[in-house]
Amino acid sequence: MEKIMRKTKTTRRTKNDLRIIPLGGLGEVGRNMTLLEYKKSILIIDVGLRFPEEDMPGIDYIIPNIEYLKKRKKDVLGIVFTHGHYDHIGAFPYIIGHIFKKNLKIFASPLTRGIILKRQEEFKGYPKPRITEVKNGSKINLGQFKIEFFRQNHNIPDNLGLFIETPVGNIMHTSDFKFDPHPINDLPTDFKKLKSLGERKVLLLMSDSTGAEEEGHSLSEKEILKNLEEIFKVAKGRIISATFASLINRIQQIISISEKSRRKVCVEGYSMKTNIEIAKQLGYVRAKKTTFINSKQIKNYPDSQVTILCTGAQGEARAALMRIASKEHPFIKIQRNDTVIFSSSVIPGNERSVQIVKDEILRQGAKVFHYKMMDIHAGGHGKKEELEKMIKIIRPKFLFPIHGQYSMLISHAELAKETGIPEKNIVLPENGQIISVTPNKIGIEKERVASNYVMVDGLGVGDVGEIVLRDRHILATDGMFVIIAIVDRQSGKVIGSPDIISRGFVYLRESKKLLKDTRKRIINIINRATGSGGAVNWSYVKDELRNKIGQFLFKITKRRPMILSVIIEV
Amino acid sequence: MEKIMRKTKTTRRTKNDLRIIPLGGLGEVGRNMTLLEYKKSILIIDVGLRFPEEDMPGIDYIIPNIEYLKKRKKDVLGIVFTHGHYDHIGAFPYIIGHIFKKNLKIFASPLTRGIILKRQEEFKGYPKPRITEVKNGSKINLGQFKIEFFRQNHNIPDNLGLFIETPVGNIMHTSDFKFDPHPINDLPTDFKKLKSLGERKVLLLMSDSTGAEEEGHSLSEKEILKNLEEIFKVAKGRIISATFASLINRIQQIISISEKSRRKVCVEGYSMKTNIEIAKQLGYVRAKKTTFINSKQIKNYPDSQVTILCTGAQGEARAALMRIASKEHPFIKIQRNDTVIFSSSVIPGNERSVQIVKDEILRQGAKVFHYKMMDIHAGGHGKKEELEKMIKIIRPKFLFPIHGQYSMLISHAELAKETGIPEKNIVLPENGQIISVTPNKIGIEKERVASNYVMVDGLGVGDVGEIVLRDRHILATDGMFVIIAIVDRQSGKVIGSPDIISRGFVYLRESKKLLKDTRKRIINIINRATGSGGAVNWSYVKDELRNKIGQFLFKITKRRPMILSVIIEV
Repeated sequence: MEKIMRKTKTTRRTKNDLRIIPLGGLGEVGRNMTLLEYKKSILIIDVGLRFPEEDMPGIDYIIPNIEYLKKRKKDVLGIVFTHGHYDHIGAFPYIIGHIFKKNLKIFASPLTRGIILKRQEEFKGYPKPRITEVKNGSKINLGQFKIEFFRQNHNIPDNLGLFIETPVGNIMHTSDFKFDPHPINDLPTDFKKLKSLGERKVLLLMSDSTGAEEEGHSLSEKEILKNLEEIFKVAKGRIISATFASLINRIQQIISISEKSRRKVCVEGYSMKTNIEIAKQLGYVRAKKTTFINSKQIKNYPDSQVTILCTGAQGEARAALMRIASKEHPFIKIQRNDTVIFSSSVIPGNERSVQIVKDEILRQGAKVFHYKMMDIHAGGHGKKEELEKMIKIIRPKFLFPIHGQYSMLISHAELAKETGIPEKNIVLPENGQIISVTPNKIGIEKERVASNYVMVDGLGVGDVGEIVLRDRHILATDGMFVIIAIVDRQSGKVIGSPDIISRGFVYLRESKKLLKDTRKRIINIINRATGSGGAVNWSYVKDELRNKIGQFLFKITKRRPMILSVIIEV
Repeated sequence: MEKIMRKTKTTRRTKNDLRIIPLGGLGEVGRNMTLLEYKKSILIIDVGLRFPEEDMPGIDYIIPNIEYLKKRKKDVLGIVFTHGHYDHIGAFPYIIGHIFKKNLKIFASPLTRGIILKRQEEFKGYPKPRITEVKNGSKINLGQFKIEFFRQNHNIPDNLGLFIETPVGNIMHTSDFKFDPHPINDLPTDFKKLKSLGERKVLLLMSDSTGAEEEGHSLSEKEILKNLEEIFKVAKGRIISATFASLINRIQQIISISEKSRRKVCVEGYSMKTNIEIAKQLGYVRAKKTTFINSKQIKNYPDSQVTILCTGAQGEARAALMRIASKEHPFIKIQRNDTVIFSSSVIPGNERSVQIVKDEILRQGAKVFHYKMMDIHAGGHGKKEELEKMIKIIRPKFLFPIHGQYSMLISHAELAKETGIPEKNIVLPENGQIISVTPNKIGIEKERVASNYVMVDGLGVGDVGEIVLRDRHILATDGMFVIIAIVDRQSGKVIGSPDIISRGFVYLRESKKLLKDTRKRIINIINRATGSGGAVNWSYVKDELRNKIGQFLFKITKRRPMILSVIIEV
C-alpha cells in the first residue's frame, strides 16, 4: 500500500487547489484535527487530544502542534466540531488562546457545545468562546466553504457528519460513525439522506477508519440492550455497571433498564456525573427525577433495587470502580451478591489494569460480566461492511481514510480498492503532510507542516519534550545517584566524606558496603584530578565521576542509575 | 465462588495430611512453583519466573519467595520440572543456591534439562546441578512420593504431566496442556493413557487454568500449518516470521514449510538461536544442515527463497523484529515485497508495542499477517472443552485449579462444578496458603507462608522492594529536584545562591524564572529557620524545604517532583 503514497507524492502546490492538512489523528487513535485551506482561508475540523502512552510517564495529554496555525491566525475562519468526545474536542482549551480573535466562528451541536463549555470552566482566565449551535440539516457559510451538517450514529448523541461545498468540489467528512438500524437514544441511520448526499457528487470522502480491521458489521445497540436486560433479570443483588463517562448512549441504556426493573441509580465518578448533568439538561439523557440517589442513600434500599453506574471500566487507578474494588470508597464496598458489568471494550494497553480490577472484584465474591463473555458493549465505529457501504453509497472520486492507526488506514484503503476506487485516488498521508486536491487530481505535497506531539503535563503545554521524557525513563528504570563533594580550594582535596543521595536505585540502608566503597572511589577520582596542580577542569572531573562511578555501580549491581555530581569549593 | 474458599478455610493441620503449598502461579500468569509436603519431606514442582508489569520499571523478573524452603532445606527431597518454559524453570538459577545440597534430586525431560543447563551457564559461580533425565513413562521414587511422568501436548516438546502416588492418595498434575489430535513435532494426545491414569483413582487433580475463560477447543496445530502454508504459497518476496523463542513447535513448523517451499532460513534473535541450537542437538528440531543461513548471506538468495525467523512478535524493544523495523539491524531492512507474519498471540499489556511495530512495517510497504486476521497461532493451553474433558476422564475427588489469573481459576472452578464436582471439593487458594489433603477432606489452613514478590533487578535479587519501586514511580512521573545550599556556620545564613539539580521535571534552560524564584524561596526558608538563634534543627529545615518548595513548584507547574535537599555548613 506504500505504493499509494508514493504515486501521489509528486504533487506541487497550485494556486487553485484545496489543501487538506491533518495535524493529528493519522497513525494514531485520538488527537483528531484537520485543516481545510483554500487560498487565504482556513477551516478547522475538530480539535482533539490523545491520551499518553505508557512510555510517557507524567504526561496528561498529547495535543496537536498548531505552529502552522499560529502563523496563519488571520486566515482562520472558524472551527466545526463533529461530536463531543475528547479525541475531537479535548485540545480546544489549550489551543483556543492561540487562535482566538473576535470574528472566529465556532460551530457545534448542542451536546458537543455543552461539553466544550463545561470543560472550559476548568480553564480559568482563558478566552470564553462563543459557540453557535448547529444540528442535523443546518447549513452555514464560512468564506468559500459551505457546510451542511448531517447526523451520524455513534455512541454519543448529536454526532454530525460534514458535507462541505468547496471551490474544487464537494468534500464529505463522516465524523466517527457506525450504521445502526436500532440505536439507543438516537434515530436509525438515515440512508436516504446519505444517498442524497452521494448524488450531489462527492469529490473526496474523508471516512473514519477506526473499525477498518474488523470483519463484518458493528453490533446494534438493540443486541446490547437485550443482553444487558438478561443480566439485570437474573441479578439478585446490586448491579455495578462500569463504562466510559463519554458513552452517553450506554449510560442511557443502563438508566432505562434500571428504571424498568425498579432500580435506583447511583452515579459515581466525577466525569460521569458531569456528563450526565449536561446531557440531562439538554435532554439527551432521559430519566425520572426520582431515579437518582447518592452513594450514602444506597443503604436505604434493598440490594435488588440498586444500580451503581460508574467510571473505571478500563481499570483506571483513580476511577470509581477501582476505588470500590480496593475498598477505598467511603460508602460502596463490593458485596458477595453484586453483579459487576464491564460495559466497554478494553483500550489497547489497559488489559492488565482491567484484569487486576476484575480479579479483585471476583476475589471479593461478586459476579463479573465483560465483553468477551457476552455482547454487552458495541463500539462506536463501523466495521468493514459499513465502511464499504459508505463508499458505495457516496461513490466519491477520491478517498482519504482518517482516524486511526496506520494499520487501520491501510486496511480501509485496501477495502476501498476492492470496492473499485483506483489506487491513485486514495491518499494515505502522515500527520503534517499536505494533501492537495483539484477537481481532477489528489496528491501529497513535498513540504509538510509541524505535527509532532505537544505534551501537556500539569500546567505545562509543550515544555516536556524528548529530553525530559528520556530522563524520566532513566530515573524510572534504575533511579538516581547524586554525589555531593566538598573540596578544599587550596589543596584541591575532598573534605570529609562525600554526601550521596540516591532514590530508586538500591535500598540504601541495606547497601552500606556499596556506599562506603563508592565514597572511597569518589574521593580518589577527585583527588587525583585536582592533585596535579594548576586550574582544575571541573566539568572533566564530573565526567570522570559519572563514567567511573557509573561503571563501578553497574559492575556491582548491573543497574545504571542517573549519576549527577555537585562539587563545592570552600 | 468465594464460597468455595470460605467453606474450605476451616481446616487445621493434622499429622497425616498432605500439604500442598503454591509459592506462585495463582492469581498470576507465570512464577509457577508448588511444594508437596508430607511429614518431613518436601517435593518441589517447577521453579518458574514471571515477567514484570509495567508498573515495575527496571525490574527484570519476579520470582517466588522461598523463605519457607530455606528453613526446611534439609527436608527437600528434590525438584521435578514439567517443561522448559521460563514460567516453569526460569527462577531456578536464583533459587538453587539456597536449597542446593549433595543429595538433592532433580528430574526433567531431555529438552527441559537442556534449556535449564544452557541457561545455568549464564550464572557463573553458582552450583552446577545434576539433572536426571525422565521421559514419558518414567517412574521415580522420592521419599514417600512415587512419581510417574506422562506426556502432554503443549507448544514446546517434551512436556510432562505428573502422576504422584502419595500416602493420602494419588495426585495428578497436568502441567500446561492442550489436547491436540494433530500436533506438530509431537504425538497426538494419548487419551488411552489418560484414561488408565483416571482409572487408578485420582484423589486430587491439579489442572492448568490458563485457557479456562475461553470457549470451545483450542485450535489444532494442523489448522495453523494449513494457514501458514497458504501464506507461504502466495508470498512473492521474503517471509519474516516472528514468534516466541520458546515456541519450539511453531519454529519447527516455519522451518519445515520453508524447506518444503525451498526457502533458506535465517534465524535472528539470541534466545531463538540458543533454543534452536539446544533443540536441534537433542533432536527436537529437525532441519537439513543446508537450510540455515546467516543474515549476511541473505543477499545471496532471491527474496522468494528466504525466510527470516525471528523474535519480537510482542513488539519487544530490543528483539530482532523491532531492530529490523526501526532500521537498526545491520543486514536486514524491511522491503516492499516482504510478508511479515506475527505467529503468536499478544500477551496482555503488549498490544501497544505490537501495534507500533506493525504500523512501522506497514509504513515501509510490507504485508502483515497477524492472529486476528487468520489462525496463524494456537495457544498452548486447553480451553473450556478440553478442561472439562480432562476432568471427565480423570474423575478426581478434589480439584485444585492451577496456573492463571484469579478470573481463570474461578472460571475453571465453575466449569468443574457444572461437570459434577461438588463445590466443597474444589479449592481456590492464594499463593502462600497451605492446602491440606486427607483421603476424605481438602481444605485451606489458617497459617500461610511468605509468597510475596521477590524482584530481580540486575544482579540484585529481592533488594528492590516497595520503597525503591515507589521512588521510581515518583521519579518517572514528575522527575526530581535536588537543592544544595551552603550555610555559614556562624551566622546561619545561606552563602551565595543555592545549587539546584533537576531532571525529568521541566526543561531547565527554559525555566530560568522558575529557578530564580525557587532559589529566593529556598534562601528565605533556610534563613528564617536559622535566624532565631540556638541550635538549628536541620531535619526540620529539610522538611520545610520539601513542603514549601513542593507547594510552590506544584502551584506553578501542577507537577510534584521528588524534592531532596542537602545543606552544607561551612
